[in-house]
Amino acid sequence: MAKYVYFFDEANKEMKSLLGGKGANLAEMTKIGLPVPPGFTITTEACNKYYENDKVIDPAMIDEIFKNLSKLEKTTGKKFGDSKNPLLVSVRSGAVISMPGMMDTVLNLGMNDNTVEGMANLTNNPRFAYDSYRRFIQMFGDVVLKIPKYKFDTILDSVKESNGFENDIDLTVEHLKQIVQKYKDLIKKEIRDEFPQEPKEQLMMAVKAVFDSWNNSRAIVYRKINGIPHHLGTAVNVQSMIFGNMGNTSGTGVAFTRNPSTGEKKLYGEFLMNAQGEDVVAGIRTPKSIDELKDIMPDVYEEFIEATEKLENHYKDMQDIEFTIENGKLYLLQTRTGKRTAKAAVNIAVDMVEEGLIDKETAIMRVNPEQIDQLLHPTFKEEDLEKATLIAKGLPASPGAASGRVYFTAEDVVRAAKNGEKAILVRLETSPEDIEGMVNAEGILTARGGMTSHAAVVARGMGKCCVAGCGELKVEEHNKLVKVGELVIKEGDFISINGNTGKVYQGIIKTSEVELIGSFGKLIEWADEIRRLGVRANADTPKDSETATKFGAEGIGLCRTEHMFFKDNRILAVRQMIVAKNTEDRKKALDKLLPFQKEDFIGIFEAMGSKPVTIRLLDPPLHEFLPNKDEDIKVLAEEIGLKFNAIKDIVEELKEFNPMLGHRGCRLAITYPEIYEMQVKAITLAAIEVKCKKGIDVKPEIMIPLVGIDKELEIIKKLVDDTVRKILEENNTNLTYKVGTMIEVPRAALTADSIAKHAEFFSFGTNDMTQMTFGFSRDDSGKFIKEYREKSIFEHDPFEKLDQIGVGKLIEIAVELGKKTNPDIKLGICGEHGGNPESIDFFHRAGLNYVSCSPFRVPIARLAAAQASIRNKSR
Amino acid sequence: MAKYVYFFDEANKEMKSLLGGKGANLAEMTKIGLPVPPGFTITTEACNKYYENDKVIDPAMIDEIFKNLSKLEKTTGKKFGDSKNPLLVSVRSGAVISMPGMMDTVLNLGMNDNTVEGMANLTNNPRFAYDSYRRFIQMFGDVVLKIPKYKFDTILDSVKESNGFENDIDLTVEHLKQIVQKYKDLIKKEIRDEFPQEPKEQLMMAVKAVFDSWNNSRAIVYRKINGIPHHLGTAVNVQSMIFGNMGNTSGTGVAFTRNPSTGEKKLYGEFLMNAQGEDVVAGIRTPKSIDELKDIMPDVYEEFIEATEKLENHYKDMQDIEFTIENGKLYLLQTRTGKRTAKAAVNIAVDMVEEGLIDKETAIMRVNPEQIDQLLHPTFKEEDLEKATLIAKGLPASPGAASGRVYFTAEDVVRAAKNGEKAILVRLETSPEDIEGMVNAEGILTARGGMTSHAAVVARGMGKCCVAGCGELKVEEHNKLVKVGELVIKEGDFISINGNTGKVYQGIIKTSEVELIGSFGKLIEWADEIRRLGVRANADTPKDSETATKFGAEGIGLCRTEHMFFKDNRILAVRQMIVAKNTEDRKKALDKLLPFQKEDFIGIFEAMGSKPVTIRLLDPPLHEFLPNKDEDIKVLAEEIGLKFNAIKDIVEELKEFNPMLGHRGCRLAITYPEIYEMQVKAITLAAIEVKCKKGIDVKPEIMIPLVGIDKELEIIKKLVDDTVRKILEENNTNLTYKVGTMIEVPRAALTADSIAKHAEFFSFGTNDMTQMTFGFSRDDSGKFIKEYREKSIFEHDPFEKLDQIGVGKLIEIAVELGKKTNPDIKLGICGEHGGNPESIDFFHRAGLNYVSCSPFRVPIARLAAAQASIRNKSR
Repeated sequence: MAKYVYFFDEANKEMKSLLGGKGANLAEMTKIGLPVPPGFTITTEACNKYYENDKVIDPAMIDEIFKNLSKLEKTTGKKFGDSKNPLLVSVRSGAVISMPGMMDTVLNLGMNDNTVEGMANLTNNPRFAYDSYRRFIQMFGDVVLKIPKYKFDTILDSVKESNGFENDIDLTVEHLKQIVQKYKDLIKKEIRDEFPQEPKEQLMMAVKAVFDSWNNSRAIVYRKINGIPHHLGTAVNVQSMIFGNMGNTSGTGVAFTRNPSTGEKKLYGEFLMNAQGEDVVAGIRTPKSIDELKDIMPDVYEEFIEATEKLENHYKDMQDIEFTIENGKLYLLQTRTGKRTAKAAVNIAVDMVEEGLIDKETAIMRVNPEQIDQLLHPTFKEEDLEKATLIAKGLPASPGAASGRVYFTAEDVVRAAKNGEKAILVRLETSPEDIEGMVNAEGILTARGGMTSHAAVVARGMGKCCVAGCGELKVEEHNKLVKVGELVIKEGDFISINGNTGKVYQGIIKTSEVELIGSFGKLIEWADEIRRLGVRANADTPKDSETATKFGAEGIGLCRTEHMFFKDNRILAVRQMIVAKNTEDRKKALDKLLPFQKEDFIGIFEAMGSKPVTIRLLDPPLHEFLPNKDEDIKVLAEEIGLKFNAIKDIVEELKEFNPMLGHRGCRLAITYPEIYEMQVKAITLAAIEVKCKKGIDVKPEIMIPLVGIDKELEIIKKLVDDTVRKILEENNTNLTYKVGTMIEVPRAALTADSIAKHAEFFSFGTNDMTQMTFGFSRDDSGKFIKEYREKSIFEHDPFEKLDQIGVGKLIEIAVELGKKTNPDIKLGICGEHGGNPESIDFFHRAGLNYVSCSPFRVPIARLAAAQASIRNKSR
Repeated sequence: MAKYVYFFDEANKEMKSLLGGKGANLAEMTKIGLPVPPGFTITTEACNKYYENDKVIDPAMIDEIFKNLSKLEKTTGKKFGDSKNPLLVSVRSGAVISMPGMMDTVLNLGMNDNTVEGMANLTNNPRFAYDSYRRFIQMFGDVVLKIPKYKFDTILDSVKESNGFENDIDLTVEHLKQIVQKYKDLIKKEIRDEFPQEPKEQLMMAVKAVFDSWNNSRAIVYRKINGIPHHLGTAVNVQSMIFGNMGNTSGTGVAFTRNPSTGEKKLYGEFLMNAQGEDVVAGIRTPKSIDELKDIMPDVYEEFIEATEKLENHYKDMQDIEFTIENGKLYLLQTRTGKRTAKAAVNIAVDMVEEGLIDKETAIMRVNPEQIDQLLHPTFKEEDLEKATLIAKGLPASPGAASGRVYFTAEDVVRAAKNGEKAILVRLETSPEDIEGMVNAEGILTARGGMTSHAAVVARGMGKCCVAGCGELKVEEHNKLVKVGELVIKEGDFISINGNTGKVYQGIIKTSEVELIGSFGKLIEWADEIRRLGVRANADTPKDSETATKFGAEGIGLCRTEHMFFKDNRILAVRQMIVAKNTEDRKKALDKLLPFQKEDFIGIFEAMGSKPVTIRLLDPPLHEFLPNKDEDIKVLAEEIGLKFNAIKDIVEELKEFNPMLGHRGCRLAITYPEIYEMQVKAITLAAIEVKCKKGIDVKPEIMIPLVGIDKELEIIKKLVDDTVRKILEENNTNLTYKVGTMIEVPRAALTADSIAKHAEFFSFGTNDMTQMTFGFSRDDSGKFIKEYREKSIFEHDPFEKLDQIGVGKLIEIAVELGKKTNPDIKLGICGEHGGNPESIDFFHRAGLNYVSCSPFRVPIARLAAAQASIRNKSR
């Protein structure tokens, strides 16, 4: 027969899946000789057995529990139900994966009309004894007997009220006795039976209640949300009670072995004398700093310090410890790995390596890559925020903090930036025409749009602070002012926005800049030693490229060229190109763009030096560059010297039913080869210039978007190669460059063997690939995605975390087929998933060469890539 | 060493890939003792060798050619270059797969200043000899020496002109001699050398020219267009010349062993006396019917009849035979399988089986399934067309012929149809709101839109005649008239349209109905005995269902429910449902729709009897059901009793960036389960009613569209099962039904193992799957698809013929994964590819259970499925 119960001295910390986290750690502390109130754990297997057995605890299991109870009586020298020296126990759940507050606990179990008197005599504190009894009945009534808690509260309140008391503390022993009687009467009325006086009966009822609580509705929901399997079951810990509220030599507290907020190596905690655990949390009395215990009880303090050091050394991680002092004797009630801020996590991990406690790999695995996002954006200082005037709150659309003068149009922001001002772009919502304003702004604030609105997506891509959907703002763009309630903020006024919280403040708040130095820098360097995956950045401008380099990007994995087309000095030429009636006119317009494009690339090449720069040729459909509204069309018609109707017709003609699935990407180059030709010319000329003038060994990689058919790439690669060759011949020089393709259309993945014939590299465009594989667009899925999350159809948003079984399978197919044709093909990914740690783990396993993500996520990706290497070592 | 030359008596018809079609057949005819002018064939391998050898014919090969030439001299008793009895030969290309007119031919080779005199003496016809010489020099100059043909024409014309002649026939021997001299002078000037007089030199130059012609640009283009591999090479046939123009006992002609237009078993052909082959084709003289040869040369006629019978019996197929009579002697110059109309193909195939010439499988393989489309639609009779007044020409968007009164709105068509009138719906372009009009019309005529416009796609689906994009029409819908040039056609006037040709006629023309009877019926029945694939139809109405049954559909593979929503007595309820503010209001509107939907299904169930009916629940996004224009919104607002702005807001809110990738399909049922619930209720109630009242064992199969995630199907299957169960319980009855899903989203295919857990059948929706796999929408790809075809990026339109390597791979993955989970899963396909023969072959190989196509393509699919079984027998 299986063993269903373990006394604390029979187990250890490795038995977590059998005993739950709490039980395993209690056993471990017992094992290493720390003062733990004795007790035993009923296993998770027992819980599962209970469910298999139609919620009946079988007699053999009961027998095993009672045997351990006898052992507990022997160990403590107390007896269950004894009127002299009664044993009281706590009965607590203890799941394998912590589910705080989700399941039930019963304290002071073993009290009855008899033992309460024993307690009163023993402690010489009848009030304490009856208060404990009252609490026990209430807890047992609520948790075990399922009597609504408010019914007990009503009794308590009525006694207090009839006596004119405000606080429980005012109740005397007599009041408490009266309440106990009323509680017992309530129970009798509710369950048509007496409150159980037999402690063993109480115990078995409580164990059953804890088992049952595993499947209460809030626990089920919690597990669903957190992805915890339902079959794990809960363990039950039965432990002898220790009272911190037995008088002035008793007390209770919580401590972290290091500072959980900074990571500083110094015990950090609080305690209260003559109190129970819940009093520390409740906040009615102000707890004291743990240091003060030294003065109150020096020996206990010493013993506690030693215990915490022993625990940290033993667990080799920062511990979060609960302790209780009963009549001058220290007991440890719980230890677990302490939660911590990103900053603390990094500092503790690095310190522990330097202390020789853990190795570098362990340190790297200790830091959650998502969490360090906090460390990578400018922030406001807490103390400054306290003084600041909060005026509104929107969605935290893109992390960071920014402070500056308000401007309402992209042009105004650009002008302000040129004058050296820091600007915040405030708009109802943004559109692609605002790109240059967004680039030049410190931060972006919109009144409309959600977490996936244009402003949010673009800002996150730029690593720029953004607060979106701030509905309280009445933005009057034409009047160049914004109203918030009574307040009117005009162009040029200062505001500050916090992209981590969505909060908007009036006036200036100082921001702190980010650098990869100290422990953080060290940790990321260690990650570089370990990771196999390369990390590049998605960057479209010299400025982004510099940020990327600062954060350690090994190249650019995606430089989009379409944003460049929107800059105000070129959009006119772009539009002339689009409305051109023939190839010749189109070429004329493109000729005007050429020098601009060349300058763009020169800036980026200079910023990236000899690191590879992957440039994606034009991708969006042409109608995105044309104005929509009649008044804008009118202006354009005048600028270009065409009739309004001529332009209007072109705008109408270019409209698409499904622009995502329309005339864009490489399809543009099949119909208008001259567009890509111009772009390749610009890349080549820029590369030659930087190479010759600065002696930099530039490495352009030309990337063709939206390829779905091998022949598309074949034709365009030839166009690219011919164009480059011609320019190199004209300039009598040479250049190392690559031509490759995005793999984003499902068909490209499915036919990657043919496509690889014409590609030196593949870069997975997982954004579009996710859209096409699922068959929903990111923009339109907003209408149903909420319900999909609620109904658990998605476990996570597939645009944030790669859908490994669907989209991932396409990637695996493409990798296999691509390598079959070209074993040396370089494989990367440049969708937003490139910055998501779980997805990075997948990309590592899939055998890609690098990931590319937004510059501000580069350190995250470096860390996640190292974790992937460590995690998949054995594979 | 390989053998590069085969004398005709050394080879046979099986050697087509080595000798080309023409050469193999000449050898075969020689073998079976038919009178073929002797000669030899230089193999395709020789041609390839020539190209490998940098376009040099190696000496051993030349030697082999000359040896065969000697044999030819011996056989004919003539000598190359001999002035008494000169051997003249033709040098013709002969590819493995016929490429008519693509490559070069030289006739009369062997003529020179010497042999021309020999010919003159021998034939006693100097004019004939010099005319032949002139033609030879011109042909040789053009084909071999690459001198532009017009230069020879200029000489010929100037001689004619200076003599005042109109026709070549007026030229005398002297004139011809003069022309020969001028031709030779031209050649000397052009190639700076004399015209080659040595026949062997002429021969080798001609052989080389034929080899070269394999890679002339028009041949390359032809091969590309027709998918003929470039590595096949061409053979060269060298054959002794026979002259049909040697006088009145000479002649030439062409004959088919059966009538190529009707299939009638009767020799069908034409001939001309004293003429060369080209004269029959040129049409200057009117050829005589082959029967008349009996009177002119009875012996030759008898011999020819015997030869044609021998050939047909030998080849076991209708032959297309060229013959020449030289001085009373018959020669056969070519035999090949004769091209024929669909009608002839069917009749000949069936007749030949009944004659015991071929077996049923051969008969089935002989008929091109695409071609029989001609036999499946009503047609106009040729004789009636000749009398009809053609008024305009548009695109042949959907085959068939229709005649009726013109109406300009769907409502008017419906009213006319109710009155028993035949109506033609004439519109600028159609939209989903016109569906009921299209259903009730005999045919559809639009002024705008291409082959994939709404009108075209929907009409083809219905098997209804449609002429689209007829730009000459000025349709004035509001005036209820259409102008074509001067002509004005008003509502109620008669027109006739031909969907096979795109032609539009004034007035009534009678149409003939289609039935699967006679040979056609027999052939299709044989196909049923052989095919493994089931064939179902896509049908949305009782009428379509009846057509489908008539054409042999074994069930309905796709019954779309959205068209039902547009019928005028329900669209209002549909719109009320969409604009409903809450679930309750939505349910109220749906309750109004329920009886209509139920009636729809009753009609279809009754039409289909005990055959399975797969009903797809609502698929399109809801905005498709709302009006777009402000005036229509106003009307709706009044009808529903809401404010204009309220409706306008809903219309705006429902707009999508990419409706294809939006809130539609099963996503609607996740957010509004009550919609599918109503549909399932209607299906169940209809099934119960038909089952109980008519005793029909109905077999509904409920199909969920656009599933991409297993959980979607899990949730909706539960909804369906719960709804059905409830109704069955209420009615105290039972019902056999299935629940399955479309596989159209790429992710569904990639995760088919999970999805199969909840599906009793998969039906591949290859239309949407093609769109999502390629990442382009059918509507939008119009802008670039033309260039894609021109640049050979597509070998075929992937919406017509399944893309086997991309989309096909997804299907294979889904079949494998789906069967892994559920080996009994039924697999079908209901995209338009279900009616495409090549795609059907793929579906057979992929292991599907059935294809479903439009009712009018059902016989095509039955035939194609049988061919797939035969073709893949060994697999």
